[in-house]
Amino acid sequence: MEKNRIIEGMLRRRSIRAFRDEEPTREVIETVVRAGQQAPFAAQLGSLLLKRDREANPFGAPLLFTVCVDVHRMERVMAARRWRRVMCDLSTLLLGIQDAAYMAQNMVQAAESLGMGSCFLGAAPYAAARIVEEYGLPPRVFPLVQLAMGYPAEDPPVRPRYPIEFSLFEDRYSELDEAAVDRAMTAMDEGYLAQDYYRSRGAKIPLGEGREETFGDDDYSWTEHVSRKLGQWSEDPAELLRAFESCGFRLSEAAPDAG
Amino acid sequence: MEKNRIIEGMLRRRSIRAFRDEEPTREVIETVVRAGQQAPFAAQLGSLLLKRDREANPFGAPLLFTVCVDVHRMERVMAARRWRRVMCDLSTLLLGIQDAAYMAQNMVQAAESLGMGSCFLGAAPYAAARIVEEYGLPPRVFPLVQLAMGYPAEDPPVRPRYPIEFSLFEDRYSELDEAAVDRAMTAMDEGYLAQDYYRSRGAKIPLGEGREETFGDDDYSWTEHVSRKLGQWSEDPAELLRAFESCGFRLSEAAPDAG
Repeated sequence: MEKNRIIEGMLRRRSIRAFRDEEPTREVIETVVRAGQQAPFAAQLGSLLLKRDREANPFGAPLLFTVCVDVHRMERVMAARRWRRVMCDLSTLLLGIQDAAYMAQNMVQAAESLGMGSCFLGAAPYAAARIVEEYGLPPRVFPLVQLAMGYPAEDPPVRPRYPIEFSLFEDRYSELDEAAVDRAMTAMDEGYLAQDYYRSRGAKIPLGEGREETFGDDDYSWTEHVSRKLGQWSEDPAELLRAFESCGFRLSEAAPDAG
Repeated sequence: MEKNRIIEGMLRRRSIRAFRDEEPTREVIETVVRAGQQAPFAAQLGSLLLKRDREANPFGAPLLFTVCVDVHRMERVMAARRWRRVMCDLSTLLLGIQDAAYMAQNMVQAAESLGMGSCFLGAAPYAAARIVEEYGLPPRVFPLVQLAMGYPAEDPPVRPRYPIEFSLFEDRYSELDEAAVDRAMTAMDEGYLAQDYYRSRGAKIPLGEGREETFGDDDYSWTEHVSRKLGQWSEDPAELLRAFESCGFRLSEAAPDAG
């Protein structure tokens, strides 16, 4: 495979959840943010909240970024141009989530290149009301995801991924026969088992009532773990719809509640 | 600012919309895809369609990737583990869009590092039905965004971004007083005007009925352009909701229609 330092950096990347005492300088932080900003955008709909409080931050990370879809800022610009947003919230959010995510992923790789590590925390949308309060967010700023960052105090192995045949489909989507599914599952499960990932962190997800546990430390791995997440969690969209609404977004409404 | 080759690559990146004849090899393509796959994920919910057809691809690009949120593949894995997805479509999509976007942004930077350029095309969700047909997508694969890629036949300048004070908020969201908004608008507008961006490509968005044009080549720039997009386009979410539904996703429903 054709490689270089940039691609090697991407292939080496893994989440970091333990951090050294060293504090990233303001210069380092701004470098990471600038690299993030330069990602492609639809309308620069991403913005960043930063908390430098190891006591409060997950994993005691020196930096906690909250990556937001920021339509408020866009509306300020539009108001100065005497425009009112008519694009519906759903379309606007679909663009904004991408703007924010491209920015965040550039930040992940920029941090790696500066010797730092990071870990995404996906629960931000479900904590939207608390985050709005904590950071004093105006309406139409949605906390999409958090990113803990700092200098790593651990050196975990790179985690496995699906085989490329399971991820890249030329011209036609593949039928994905049983054998292909099996190869993909084996790659993921054997990969995580070889790293003792779930056992070492006691990360097995308990089964709900009426389901009998049949997995032990020697076979509980990625496919069963992720299946339990999607098979047991978040059955009702009401919570997430409320989170969007608490940030001023109504996914099914035509006329945005723009100021 | 603390820099290195990786960050310099990000800061140099701009969309490319003209491509040389040279065809990326299979090795180059797989390298880009592998770098994409290694991005952080919630559940590996991103997959890729590839079309190598310059005649049909936008900008005559040798490569056109369609970046998908692929819940079908996850459900195949879950079925093999005898699980049925109960996580609602909205939550699943919110994770999946991020998985797909992080992958796509790694691909953008991996391509840059191999001497290629790329351009995101955001209209894929609105063309979902056509893409489903074209690639034979099974239910619950949603085309999020397309990425045209190849060796660049143009060398445009790097496009401007908001000042960092407009994008990074420590501890509290900034009030964004008029002066801050004005500085951000000036940075964007002067930046694009200096590059003759909109005039040279005839990209001015026409005004709807009843609105008088007051902008000319010397002052029509980014803030007015983006305001016209969000101020005139996509007033009704029904189209996008239908696109999700045509791919088997119902954003407001609790019980997913999982196989």
